[in-house]
Amino acid sequence: MTGSIDLNADLGEGFGRWSLGDDEALLSIVSSANVACGFHAGDPSIMRRVCELAAANGVAIGAQVGYPDLAGFGRRFIDIDPGELHDGVLYQLGALDAFARAAGATVAYVKPHGALYNAVVHHEAQAAAVVDAVASFRPGMPVLGLPGSVIFRLAAVAGLDAVAEAFVDRAYEADGTLVPRSRPGAVIDDRTEAVTRAVSLATFGHLEAHDGTALTIEARSLCVHGDSAGAVDLARSVRAALERAAVRIEPFAR
Amino acid sequence: MTGSIDLNADLGEGFGRWSLGDDEALLSIVSSANVACGFHAGDPSIMRRVCELAAANGVAIGAQVGYPDLAGFGRRFIDIDPGELHDGVLYQLGALDAFARAAGATVAYVKPHGALYNAVVHHEAQAAAVVDAVASFRPGMPVLGLPGSVIFRLAAVAGLDAVAEAFVDRAYEADGTLVPRSRPGAVIDDRTEAVTRAVSLATFGHLEAHDGTALTIEARSLCVHGDSAGAVDLARSVRAALERAAVRIEPFAR
Amino acid sequence: MTGSIDLNADLGEGFGRWSLGDDEALLSIVSSANVACGFHAGDPSIMRRVCELAAANGVAIGAQVGYPDLAGFGRRFIDIDPGELHDGVLYQLGALDAFARAAGATVAYVKPHGALYNAVVHHEAQAAAVVDAVASFRPGMPVLGLPGSVIFRLAAVAGLDAVAEAFVDRAYEADGTLVPRSRPGAVIDDRTEAVTRAVSLATFGHLEAHDGTALTIEARSLCVHGDSAGAVDLARSVRAALERAAVRIEPFAR
Amino acid sequence: MTGSIDLNADLGEGFGRWSLGDDEALLSIVSSANVACGFHAGDPSIMRRVCELAAANGVAIGAQVGYPDLAGFGRRFIDIDPGELHDGVLYQLGALDAFARAAGATVAYVKPHGALYNAVVHHEAQAAAVVDAVASFRPGMPVLGLPGSVIFRLAAVAGLDAVAEAFVDRAYEADGTLVPRSRPGAVIDDRTEAVTRAVSLATFGHLEAHDGTALTIEARSLCVHGDSAGAVDLARSVRAALERAAVRIEPFAR
Repeated sequence: MTGSIDLNADLGEGFGRWSLGDDEALLSIVSSANVACGFHAGDPSIMRRVCELAAANGVAIGAQVGYPDLAGFGRRFIDIDPGELHDGVLYQLGALDAFARAAGATVAYVKPHGALYNAVVHHEAQAAAVVDAVASFRPGMPVLGLPGSVIFRLAAVAGLDAVAEAFVDRAYEADGTLVPRSRPGAVIDDRTEAVTRAVSLATFGHLEAHDGTALTIEARSLCVHGDSAGAVDLARSVRAALERAAVRIEPFAR
Repeated sequence: MTGSIDLNADLGEGFGRWSLGDDEALLSIVSSANVACGFHAGDPSIMRRVCELAAANGVAIGAQVGYPDLAGFGRRFIDIDPGELHDGVLYQLGALDAFARAAGATVAYVKPHGALYNAVVHHEAQAAAVVDAVASFRPGMPVLGLPGSVIFRLAAVAGLDAVAEAFVDRAYEADGTLVPRSRPGAVIDDRTEAVTRAVSLATFGHLEAHDGTALTIEARSLCVHGDSAGAVDLARSVRAALERAAVRIEPFAR
Repeated sequence: MTGSIDLNADLGEGFGRWSLGDDEALLSIVSSANVACGFHAGDPSIMRRVCELAAANGVAIGAQVGYPDLAGFGRRFIDIDPGELHDGVLYQLGALDAFARAAGATVAYVKPHGALYNAVVHHEAQAAAVVDAVASFRPGMPVLGLPGSVIFRLAAVAGLDAVAEAFVDRAYEADGTLVPRSRPGAVIDDRTEAVTRAVSLATFGHLEAHDGTALTIEARSLCVHGDSAGAVDLARSVRAALERAAVRIEPFAR
Repeated sequence: MTGSIDLNADLGEGFGRWSLGDDEALLSIVSSANVACGFHAGDPSIMRRVCELAAANGVAIGAQVGYPDLAGFGRRFIDIDPGELHDGVLYQLGALDAFARAAGATVAYVKPHGALYNAVVHHEAQAAAVVDAVASFRPGMPVLGLPGSVIFRLAAVAGLDAVAEAFVDRAYEADGTLVPRSRPGAVIDDRTEAVTRAVSLATFGHLEAHDGTALTIEARSLCVHGDSAGAVDLARSVRAALERAAVRIEPFAR
């Protein structure tokens, strides 16, 4: 049983004239901000503003690295050469770090986005490319990911800090993997249930799978979403419930 | 009279499948490489390769920052909001620095590219935006520019190191500005003349203007080009002539 | 006095994951849709959907051509070579026409967007480039613009149909130009006043300038906006008021 | 035995400042030009110039449609939603057609590029998306492809003209598929052999597979390359040899 946990969410996912989600609201709720770095979303000015606000709120800044695909929002798999993926991740890390440093902070961790997040669960070459880029940027740097995934294993081997996250609003299979979004019941829409799961995960590391199997997930971070008004409300409820349960909300890294 | 001078050239200006210039040849000639950062040219893999090769050759790495305009190669003026320009410059600096650091080096200086280079000669707001971004990245960082330009003045005020450069293959007006490319005689095609000018600049800081006026330009760096076979040959000849004149070729910063 | 007028608005200005404005609501209000063509906003799927919906609603499809600048939403002047601007406009026209034709319609007119709209008011070379591209796409094609602007004059010379538009929510100077947005009172926020102006413009071609001068503007189209809920409400009110005044709302071209 | 055949090659694959291949030389050799449409390569001005030159030389203009991936030159598979692929193909077709029409011609056929070419050999959903887009642009339009591929079959079903092409410089398996580039001997570097194969294909439809198996390939077009000086020379030799063998070189469509 843990006395503290991290809450992470995707932020800074607008681009130019277009905004997405309520960054300001989320930055008053989460302890870690996965900041888009301009490849799938985000632009320099959004990155600067989010870094400044995160630093002011004591929220850890993470690099939400993605495929170079603004048109697809990083949500479609690209069979990119691992060397080019490596270089693209390093590019995004450096760019975000300039804004984190200008705000008096630093990039504290990395979390792949969208289709890249899904790819590095099983794609050895792409997972290795991300891990190598992160290790080359800073030895021992934390990578936020799915326990049991390929990147999780490779990150540990490379001496990175593989930080497990769990999803409060996603159903799990009996083997600890996520129920695919295409299946009914994959997303938990009931706020009360999601909040209950968050508290159970944070306090006991317990979670009930889709089929009733009791799972143990030692997550150091819980992922919440912020791309709709309802999502922000859920995130706020999760935070409030954790605080009522005497769980401290704090970043896993700075 | 100076015993040493820097030679700088634009490098890493390919993109994806497209290459431009002979980076490898230039890196055996110049002492400072203005590396494109992905906004007007350059991509993460090119940036990595150029940084690795520059570090191996003892060539200083500079950030050749430009407008976000791949289609226009950064050569057309964009009336960009100064705040957005500031953030875009910081983004490019951070991105390049990640590759410089991975190669065991660092970004040693900044040189605006193309239409931005021309804009910051006279455009106060854009010049100030570039200067602020550089100062926020690293206090005192050198900026390579045209003596007498607005950015040159603002950089000095901001405590940056304003480094003057001169062009070996461009004609000058009597007031020390460049003859516009649209005018006949603006570019000095004769290799012997260009080489002679380079040596005169490096050893005495002397240059004859278009109309015969004797100019004094205390340049700490000479700009050569590399986007054609002839340009590389000229750069090589300039280096050889400087060495024969006992001028050391070395970076103004590392 | 006219018995009919056109209402035009910018549509299809989302991109990928990002949406902007309420295209569906606007397509039930306006008679002409200025559809973004992918250079400053819009993507192929948005273009297809807007064209289908416009065709179904009997709304004329116009090409809202812009500078190639997604990051800047086409709102910053680019000193683009006129030849390249010409080719970029033709590219956008062809792309949109493919979707218009697939929906059983055609591109009925052209309206430059944002900074290009402002540029062609006074920039001869850019205005000529747009006019030449439109004429090369289809002789006699209508161009929607500001009366008195350079493009208006050049379009007429080139045999295009120069269609004057007026803005229901913008203040005018005594000489018939728009009060710059930077000046107080430039935008008319009061819905009642905007609606009154729309009816006066549509029925008598009369408008009172900022300083009280009586203006005559023979506009064949009124421009309304749709990028906020308030804007859509205003557009709806304008339409309702025009209908009450027995003004038919119909496209100036198909 | 046929008395005529088409020669096709990829053209217009530069972008902005970057050029690739020798478009002018190729346009004096081939009868069909696969013109890049701006998604993986090509820009509006290149498209205009290539269309004008193709029309002047009597070369048929084909749309070389690709994934939206300038950075990857369309050479990496993207798991794009079929609906978005459909719309992207239609966008490219329309854009190119504007230039073809301005040059007094029309887009005569479609040939997918790079990773998309490879995908539609076996990927049902992507092949169907391309076919639907082409059919929606013009019923019966020719699609150039690999005999036996999924798109070949779907194109025929949709009433398009599925035109078989063969490669003069690629080795074939006994089943008529191409030997993968990763395997030794996949590319035929010997110019004499390539020329011999071209003539054999054009006159008898005969080809010897990698393992000696005699193949019959009824290709209506032969694909040559132009991205190197050697490639242009080979293309020229192929054309000369075909003419000596009394094979007319002419487009399969206009």
